Amino acid sequence: MHTRVHFHSSREQVRVPNVIALVGLPARGKTYISHKLCRYLNWIGIKTRAFNVGEYRRKACDFSNEGKSDFFNPQNLRAVKIRDECARLAMEDMGQYLENKEGEVAIFDATNTTRERRKWLVDFCKKEDRDPKFRIFFVESVCDDPEIINSNIAEVKISSPDYVGRMTEEQARDDFVRRIENYKSQYETLDEELDDELSFIRVINAGRSFYVHNVNGHVQSRVVYFLMNIHLLPRSIYLTRHGESEYNRIGRLGGDSPLSDNGLTYAQKLREYFEKENVPGDLRIWSSQKIRAAQTANHMKDLAAHVEYWKVLDEIDAGICEGLTYEDFQARYPKQFAERDKDKYHYRYPSGESYEDLVARLEPVIMELERQSNVLVVSHQAVLRCILAYFDNKNRSELPYLNVPLHTIIKLTPKAYSCEIEMFKFKIDAVDTYRAKPNEPVDNGNGNHSSLEWEYSNETTLCHSP
Amino acid sequence: MHTRVHFHSSREQVRVPNVIALVGLPARGKTYISHKLCRYLNWIGIKTRAFNVGEYRRKACDFSNEGKSDFFNPQNLRAVKIRDECARLAMEDMGQYLENKEGEVAIFDATNTTRERRKWLVDFCKKEDRDPKFRIFFVESVCDDPEIINSNIAEVKISSPDYVGRMTEEQARDDFVRRIENYKSQYETLDEELDDELSFIRVINAGRSFYVHNVNGHVQSRVVYFLMNIHLLPRSIYLTRHGESEYNRIGRLGGDSPLSDNGLTYAQKLREYFEKENVPGDLRIWSSQKIRAAQTANHMKDLAAHVEYWKVLDEIDAGICEGLTYEDFQARYPKQFAERDKDKYHYRYPSGESYEDLVARLEPVIMELERQSNVLVVSHQAVLRCILAYFDNKNRSELPYLNVPLHTIIKLTPKAYSCEIEMFKFKIDAVDTYRAKPNEPVDNGNGNHSSLEWEYSNETTLCHSP
Repeated sequence: MHTRVHFHSSREQVRVPNVIALVGLPARGKTYISHKLCRYLNWIGIKTRAFNVGEYRRKACDFSNEGKSDFFNPQNLRAVKIRDECARLAMEDMGQYLENKEGEVAIFDATNTTRERRKWLVDFCKKEDRDPKFRIFFVESVCDDPEIINSNIAEVKISSPDYVGRMTEEQARDDFVRRIENYKSQYETLDEELDDELSFIRVINAGRSFYVHNVNGHVQSRVVYFLMNIHLLPRSIYLTRHGESEYNRIGRLGGDSPLSDNGLTYAQKLREYFEKENVPGDLRIWSSQKIRAAQTANHMKDLAAHVEYWKVLDEIDAGICEGLTYEDFQARYPKQFAERDKDKYHYRYPSGESYEDLVARLEPVIMELERQSNVLVVSHQAVLRCILAYFDNKNRSELPYLNVPLHTIIKLTPKAYSCEIEMFKFKIDAVDTYRAKPNEPVDNGNGNHSSLEWEYSNETTLCHSP
Repeated sequence: MHTRVHFHSSREQVRVPNVIALVGLPARGKTYISHKLCRYLNWIGIKTRAFNVGEYRRKACDFSNEGKSDFFNPQNLRAVKIRDECARLAMEDMGQYLENKEGEVAIFDATNTTRERRKWLVDFCKKEDRDPKFRIFFVESVCDDPEIINSNIAEVKISSPDYVGRMTEEQARDDFVRRIENYKSQYETLDEELDDELSFIRVINAGRSFYVHNVNGHVQSRVVYFLMNIHLLPRSIYLTRHGESEYNRIGRLGGDSPLSDNGLTYAQKLREYFEKENVPGDLRIWSSQKIRAAQTANHMKDLAAHVEYWKVLDEIDAGICEGLTYEDFQARYPKQFAERDKDKYHYRYPSGESYEDLVARLEPVIMELERQSNVLVVSHQAVLRCILAYFDNKNRSELPYLNVPLHTIIKLTPKAYSCEIEMFKFKIDAVDTYRAKPNEPVDNGNGNHSSLEWEYSNETTLCHSP
């Protein structure tokens, strides 16, 4: 009865490879944008790699001299030649990457501050013998707010491999300011008239304003929407599963059972945690619509500015396996069970969902999390794996095996190029719902995070991902 | 076992009422934007109403004189007074509408071309005694492309109630051009520096560029994303259900059965339709991932530029009722059955979905349909009801009863202020899956669309919604 149909997944909508080229002076957050975009696009299933010209330069040159500002003086002809050569190399690698279909999007992370350099990139993308040609989109970051520039210099630049161990912070800062001046003399910003034929976005003062021109295609549209929603303000995102449920206790998948006594204790402890945590500003709580999650969230109702119940945060739909134990599943559907172990990310429960489906349904949650300040998400194992994978930049083979134990708070604090991850595990009994990847050492039920059983205290940082 | 939890739906995220104020000269598509935004926001569940100052003026004044351009001369002090009074009335109605919580968003559709008028609006929104105050967002449409302006004048303005039956088209056009000139003399565009404190988007040349400033909150973010995805290019969207399936024949809900023989015949006829239809440019086909839909779409694979299979286009999940007939459903779960009849839009099948859930999951499809040119969507009854309701501006009580019969193509052609809807019904036997609203006259199984059984011919327009 089952006719076999082969489905392309949604990511195959992308046909023409895309180049996203950054534009801007040093310390305008280009690499920050490049990292974030790369992570986001990969997570939604569009394979993306960033090509950072600075890294090519550091590989090509003697660090001890050529990270310094003189090297970026347009009068220094020898240096200009080296820098051009590095850009050319990065560009060629990028071309190969796209032509070999290793990925669909390449991010070209360099200053690209002159119209000439940008024309060179445009010509490269529409090379005659290339079919399909690449679609190019420029992302310019402009900033005249000294506060943003200084904080960027302080946060990332003086810890750059160009400087670390070579000079004092003071010297690094001075040198870096001179490097910016060297670029400024030649800088030509993207212009609505002169560059009318290009597709681009200008991000002004870290997102206070945007100028968007000639957006072309799905990827560019997604990039624009994403850039308009991210922000740099300090905040934390808290993830937790519901407290232990009745179904957890008897090892059944899915369902909609209420909390067990242990689960209720956790809900109470969670409340105490947030009473002490003293989240600055408003805390928002987003819960799934499953009873076990809503019961957990409701314990904190009065601590939050908003409590919202989102169906998209409901647990993965296990289809015909809802309500079964793992043992039932294996006994009744041994073939399905084996298939799931082979490729857990893409495996879809009959009449249910796959992790890939989950990521698609969670995309609006990620977008909204990017926009918000402090949020607590009360949800489920599979859903939180997807969200955690986004923030921790985990790939799709790791994602379905991330360890998100019961009775544990995961606190995410986004930093410039990464996300700080802390896990607070409460000393409240709970069953262990983790199932390790087959043929891999079982990590004491604790999977790939080295979390310990611990009485919560404010200082307890169990896991830090740089 | 089932703990009752009361859920707020996602639309209750909106707390502070929002005012969206249009800005721009006549014939810049302000009312077009206002209509589209209003329809979109209502469809996603954010209750919205537009307040058009022109309509207040037409109600207040003697049509025979005061639609003419003299009336818009800033030197005509009597007219200025009347126009100000109309704006004030519209604004007060808008204030009442939001304060009485009749809706969450009000669109103020007027020229608002002076900084003074906009300040007046801003002050109105932050009135001292108002708690919460309104959040205001300006949407300016600027255009210096004569082709766009002329097409707008031709398409909508000379058929305006200000002119129709009062003068020739020629006279109407001349008068309208003078009206624009009257506004131009006073026009102050939104400015990144002078208006730095405001939140706004400038839509430039019907979407070729955008300047976005200081976006604040969920509604503004959605509005910006929507405006960046809509376009004015001519195209059609085709909707069809899969051909009749095996489950359709035996009256079962949901499932994943293949096409019946009738269904296969329909797939063949559908192909012939598109061979004749001669869609200009590329046709894209989006199918659900259910076998019956994919089988239908696959018949046309070589006619389309892309065929994509989207899980979000799968039929409503009937949860515990999957595979039942309506009679089984009623017999086994009489309470559920009655609840569904009471409020079909919000009713959620246990372990399944509601129409409200469907709308949430289809929002990215609508956004992508807005971006595209010609698309054929092969999907299912409940899903197509949601999509049709969006384009035909149907409210949530009508939506679950829209008639989307089997073996019928629905062709949607968006026009300036509406969407032309044509239904082509093929003379291929199929069971009737329509279930009328209880206690309403059964419309011969054809529900609320007056479609006829008809052999398809290119000229056959069965339904036209102005």
